[in-house]
Amino acid sequence: MKLGAIEAGGTKFVLGVGNEQGEILEKIVIPTEHPDITVPKVLEFFEGKGIERLGLGGFGPIDINATSPEYGKLQKTPKTDWVDYPLGAKLKEGLGVPVIIDTDVNVAAMSEAKWGNATDVNTCLYITVGTGIGAGAYFHGQTLKGLSHPEMGHIPVKRHPDDDYEGTCPYHKDCLEGIAAGPSLMNRWGKKGQELADDPKVWEMEAFYLAQALTTYIYILSPERIVMGGGVMKQAQLFPLIRKNVLEMLNGYVSSPFLTEKEIDQYIVPPGLTDEAGVKGALYLAMQQ
Amino acid sequence: MKLGAIEAGGTKFVLGVGNEQGEILEKIVIPTEHPDITVPKVLEFFEGKGIERLGLGGFGPIDINATSPEYGKLQKTPKTDWVDYPLGAKLKEGLGVPVIIDTDVNVAAMSEAKWGNATDVNTCLYITVGTGIGAGAYFHGQTLKGLSHPEMGHIPVKRHPDDDYEGTCPYHKDCLEGIAAGPSLMNRWGKKGQELADDPKVWEMEAFYLAQALTTYIYILSPERIVMGGGVMKQAQLFPLIRKNVLEMLNGYVSSPFLTEKEIDQYIVPPGLTDEAGVKGALYLAMQQ
Ligand SMILES: Nc1ncnc2c1ncn2[C@@H]1O[C@H](COP(=O)(O)OP(=O)(O)O)[C@@H](O)[C@H]1O
Ligand SMILES: Nc1ncnc2c1ncn2[C@@H]1O[C@H](COP(=O)(O)OP(=O)(O)O)[C@@H](O)[C@H]1O
Ligand SMILES: [Zn+2]
Ligand SMILES: [Zn+2]
Repeated sequence: MKLGAIEAGGTKFVLGVGNEQGEILEKIVIPTEHPDITVPKVLEFFEGKGIERLGLGGFGPIDINATSPEYGKLQKTPKTDWVDYPLGAKLKEGLGVPVIIDTDVNVAAMSEAKWGNATDVNTCLYITVGTGIGAGAYFHGQTLKGLSHPEMGHIPVKRHPDDDYEGTCPYHKDCLEGIAAGPSLMNRWGKKGQELADDPKVWEMEAFYLAQALTTYIYILSPERIVMGGGVMKQAQLFPLIRKNVLEMLNGYVSSPFLTEKEIDQYIVPPGLTDEAGVKGALYLAMQQ
Repeated sequence: MKLGAIEAGGTKFVLGVGNEQGEILEKIVIPTEHPDITVPKVLEFFEGKGIERLGLGGFGPIDINATSPEYGKLQKTPKTDWVDYPLGAKLKEGLGVPVIIDTDVNVAAMSEAKWGNATDVNTCLYITVGTGIGAGAYFHGQTLKGLSHPEMGHIPVKRHPDDDYEGTCPYHKDCLEGIAAGPSLMNRWGKKGQELADDPKVWEMEAFYLAQALTTYIYILSPERIVMGGGVMKQAQLFPLIRKNVLEMLNGYVSSPFLTEKEIDQYIVPPGLTDEAGVKGALYLAMQQ
C-alpha cells in the first residue's frame, strides 16, 4: 500500500510518499506560505500517486481530536495566515483519502519509538528546543492526547537565582518556552545560541531550566527514554549538564538504574533520526487504526 | 468469576471480594501494622473464598512493572517496616492466583473512569491532597506508567510571593508535596487544615499551589477530566479558588470549552466514589489483561 506523509512546519512542508516498511520512495520540500499557495502545491504533489491514506504531523496548536468536527483545523498559531485554517478537511477533500493528524512533536516521539533512538522501549518523550519548546509522548503504540494536545513547553518553572530576564511568551511571559527557547537566549544574552557556544554560564542556566522541565516530565509521565532535539540542542555541551542537573533535582527519589550517573546517558539522548524524522513519523501515523 | 481486591494504604488495608460487575460482595478493613502481622491476616481473609485473580492498589513507592523480578516490591516508603517488602510475591505465593498491582492513585483514577465521575471520558487525572500529594492518570483503558510510576506530587513549583515556608519534603524540601500537602498547612500556619477553615489567606495560597500543579498536568497530559480528592480537598472552598487560578494561569492558551468560566466546574471535580473507590478500582485492576 502506498501512503502519504506530511511534516507541516512553520517554515517548510516536507511531503513524502512511502510504504508500510517506513521507506520514503519520493520526497519534496516546499516553503510554508499562505495556505492558498501552499495547499494547492501539496495537492498537486500527491495527485495521481495512488496513496491510500495520509499522515500529517502539524505545527500547532491544531485540533487533533479525531471525533471533532474541526479535526485538523489550526487554532491560534503565531502564523497568522493559518489561524483557523481547516488543513485536515482541505486535504481530505482534495485527495479523497483518510487523513490522520497529530502534532509535530507527537509524531517525532512516535518516529523515535518506531525507527529512532527509542525502539527498545514502550514509552518515550521527545522534546524539541528550538524557536519554541514542544514535547510529545509515545505510550504503548499511541501518542498522548486528551482534552487537547499537550503543550509541554508552556509549563511554569522556578527561576534560576541569577536570571532576571522577563521572558518572551506572549501568554505567560516566563513559562519554560518563554525563558529557555532559542529566542530567549538571543534576548537575554544579546546573541544567538550558536554564537554563545563558548560562554559556560549561558549553558549552565539553560541546562538548569531544561533539567527542571525533564524532572517535571519524569515525575508526571515516567517515560522510559527522553529524546532531545531542536536547534538549541545542537550545543552538545548541554547534554552532560542537563543529565547532571536532572540527577540533582530528582535527588534519588525515583528508583531506576537509568537515573544514575552510570546510565543516564542512555536515558537522556539525542534523536536517532535526523532529516526524515517528521516525514517517517507521519508515514507511521498514516498506518494507525 | 470471583475477584479479590486490596486497597493497601499507610494506615489501613481494605480487603474485598467482588465480581466483574464491580459489586463488592464482602469487605473488611484491617490496620497497617508490621508486614508479618498484616500479611497473614490478608491471606486468612481470602483463604477459601475462591478468588481467581487479585488486584492491589498500593501505597508506594512500589515496583509496578509487571515484567520486573521485583514486581509488587515496596521501595523506599516512609513506613520503614515495609521497605523492600515483596508484597506482590507474598500474596501470589500465599494465594496461588495472579496478582495485578498498581499505585493507589492510578487505581483511583481507573476507578473514577470506570465507576465514578469520569465514566464519560477516555482520559482522566485523579489527584489526592492529604498527608502527601499523589496523582494517577487513566488513558484509554490503562494507567500511566513507564520507567517507574509517576510521582506527580514531587514536581518543582514556583513559590507564592507571600510564602517563605521552607517545605517538608525530605527529598526536595519545597516541591509541591513539601509546601501544599496537609502537614505543610500545620507547619506553616500552626494549625491543622480542618482548623483553618475560616482563614481565607490559607486557602488562597493553597489554591495557588494546587492550581499551578493542575496547570502543569494539563500542559503535559491534557486529561479530559481532573478529579480532586483527599483530606485537604474536604475544604470545598478550594474548588472555586483552584478553578479561577487555573484559568488565570493558562491565560487562554489551551482551547477547550471546559477551560472557560462557564464549564470549568465540570472539568475540575470532586470524586464520584468515596469509601469504596480504592477497593472497587482494585477489582477493576484484577480484570486487566
Ligand atoms: N548550534 C546552535 N546552538 C545553539 N542554538 C542554536 C544552534 N542552531 C540553532 N540554534 C537556535 O535554535 C533555534 C531554531 O531552532 P530549530 O529547531 O532549528 O528550528 P524551529 O524550532 O524553528 O523548527 C534558533 O533560536 C537558533 O538560534
Ligand atoms: N476538613 C479538612 N480540611 C482541611 N484539611 C483536612 C481536612 N480533613 C483532613 N485534612 C488534612 O488532610 C490530611 C489527611 O489526608 P487524608 O486524605 O485524610 O489521609 P491520607 O493522605 O493519610 O490517606 C491531614 O493533613 C489533615 O489535616
Ligand atoms: Zn507560555
Ligand atoms: Zn518532594
